[in-house]
Amino acid sequence: MLVKSKHYRTVWLSGRSVFLIEQNLLPFTFKIYEAKTYQDTCFAIKTMMVRGAGAIGAAAGFAMAQAFLAKADPARAKKEIEATRPTAQNLFFAVDRVYHSSDTAAEAQKIADEDAENCRLIGKHGNKLIKNGCQIETHCNAGWLAFVDFGTALAPIYAAKNSGKKVFVYVDETRPRGQGARLTAWELKNENVPHVIIPDNAGAFLMSQSKIDLVIVGADRIARNGDTANKIGTLEKAIAAKAYNIPFYVAAPTSTFDLNCTSGKAIPIEERSEDEILYQTGPNRSGKQEKILVCSPGSKAYNPAFDITPAKYITGIITEKGIIKPTTASIKRIFS
Amino acid sequence: MLVKSKHYRTVWLSGRSVFLIEQNLLPFTFKIYEAKTYQDTCFAIKTMMVRGAGAIGAAAGFAMAQAFLAKADPARAKKEIEATRPTAQNLFFAVDRVYHSSDTAAEAQKIADEDAENCRLIGKHGNKLIKNGCQIETHCNAGWLAFVDFGTALAPIYAAKNSGKKVFVYVDETRPRGQGARLTAWELKNENVPHVIIPDNAGAFLMSQSKIDLVIVGADRIARNGDTANKIGTLEKAIAAKAYNIPFYVAAPTSTFDLNCTSGKAIPIEERSEDEILYQTGPNRSGKQEKILVCSPGSKAYNPAFDITPAKYITGIITEKGIIKPTTASIKRIFS
Repeated sequence: MLVKSKHYRTVWLSGRSVFLIEQNLLPFTFKIYEAKTYQDTCFAIKTMMVRGAGAIGAAAGFAMAQAFLAKADPARAKKEIEATRPTAQNLFFAVDRVYHSSDTAAEAQKIADEDAENCRLIGKHGNKLIKNGCQIETHCNAGWLAFVDFGTALAPIYAAKNSGKKVFVYVDETRPRGQGARLTAWELKNENVPHVIIPDNAGAFLMSQSKIDLVIVGADRIARNGDTANKIGTLEKAIAAKAYNIPFYVAAPTSTFDLNCTSGKAIPIEERSEDEILYQTGPNRSGKQEKILVCSPGSKAYNPAFDITPAKYITGIITEKGIIKPTTASIKRIFS
Repeated sequence: MLVKSKHYRTVWLSGRSVFLIEQNLLPFTFKIYEAKTYQDTCFAIKTMMVRGAGAIGAAAGFAMAQAFLAKADPARAKKEIEATRPTAQNLFFAVDRVYHSSDTAAEAQKIADEDAENCRLIGKHGNKLIKNGCQIETHCNAGWLAFVDFGTALAPIYAAKNSGKKVFVYVDETRPRGQGARLTAWELKNENVPHVIIPDNAGAFLMSQSKIDLVIVGADRIARNGDTANKIGTLEKAIAAKAYNIPFYVAAPTSTFDLNCTSGKAIPIEERSEDEILYQTGPNRSGKQEKILVCSPGSKAYNPAFDITPAKYITGIITEKGIIKPTTASIKRIFS
């Protein structure tokens, strides 16, 4: 997608180098990191320069290809890459595919291209839900920065805009890490999509004022019955949307489904450091990055990173294979 | 209530001086401001050293008394005081009472004492809703800092704790201004009430995990039918609580009811500066107050300060006269 009117992917291979957007510097600085070796790429994954399921998977696939290109010990490189983010499913999947391929660089490229193509298709299918003049709320960042290109929750919005429709996006800031305020707003600004950042608290109010026509969010994992794990706060939006009869869609590639999970109850919830709530970082007036305390000193904070939205609150799931109902039967059907 | 184990009110008169907690410095600095003249007290109200309906009312009453004690022109002083916060109902009410009284200092003291006593009674009535071991979620700051003493939403919690019950409070941080993270957490810490700060996004998740037994919030204005205006985000909590069958109570003195308002639709919603969302302030590691940008540069933000919770989501309203149903009939009854 566009950054300062130029097209970028989040990660790409050129020669023997992997190039990637240093997402940990966004939205304040836009910089490309060149990883000359697979170890450099491992470093980029480990230090969260690259983030989001799709982008991590593609970067890991490229890292594996780099190891082969450099004639490194492939088994050892595989282990090193896998150790960077041991909970990222896409990473293992990508590394494995490249490892067992006969044309490793081509296979890694294929993984990245497939990720982009799946997101493009999610955009194409999701675009059907968006009427001209539509006002959409989104939570967290499920944009192209989390994938190789296009994104998931934002893909239908980009597709709608590019097909000539007027759209307006209400961007939940998404505390505590602020991925909406920082990344989604940055993406939308670069793509010239009209938008405004709102406090997470304002969602239901806007719905009550008929300002939201549609909610689209991404997903971290979807159980076989349609229950969806996503960034903390997704559940509140889903419940509020239901209360106001506003369609609530999850957008995710089929790789997000975990058919071994019978329901959301089986999905573990990661608890992250309280410091993400207690402190905030950003540039001060002089542009110097500062970390400040935003809570009462001495109080503790509790930071569950995800929540589970029961399928009953979800209108549909937008996948690269089409839009489906969040039911076991519909989900099984797209995998058969 | 307690600050560093010593009892304080938010505002009090001693001799000809009004003393008040400089709330704009909390939670990082605890300091008392001495207003030697009514003009000093006006300055304190105008610059938000004192905040919250009850505390502002009491401070304004004391300011009017100060003017009489200093033999200033009462009519002129009245106008000056009224101009400090022209939308604060309690301010006009208090200034008027003192202005027309024959013993102005005593009348101002009475206003402050009545505010404290009403809050104490709200605590006493609300305490009945709290079982031993109760886990309570609260939004924004409706504690004693917003009144003269005890507070409203927090009063039942203090009463429960002081009557020997175990309680635990989940404190919504309450973006954008963070009154929960900053003021409620500060109050609870000083009163030794076990608590933890949560992102506003985590409310429904905690409810889904059966971690919340009760929600209590304050109110800025309550319409004749029970619809309640309160800090943005209150509506989301109310809808989520309903979805999980969790009792949702509003705590407010009867002075908060506006019988001229037939429903919440008639209550205007204040829109505040986007800077409250885009920037955050707090001390950095060296203790220096810094203002930092926390959003993507160049994006706009939308900042509605309040929302309206329809009466159907409210289990009951805790007033100094008892707990009532949020219906026109029940509300009329306590005023007859």
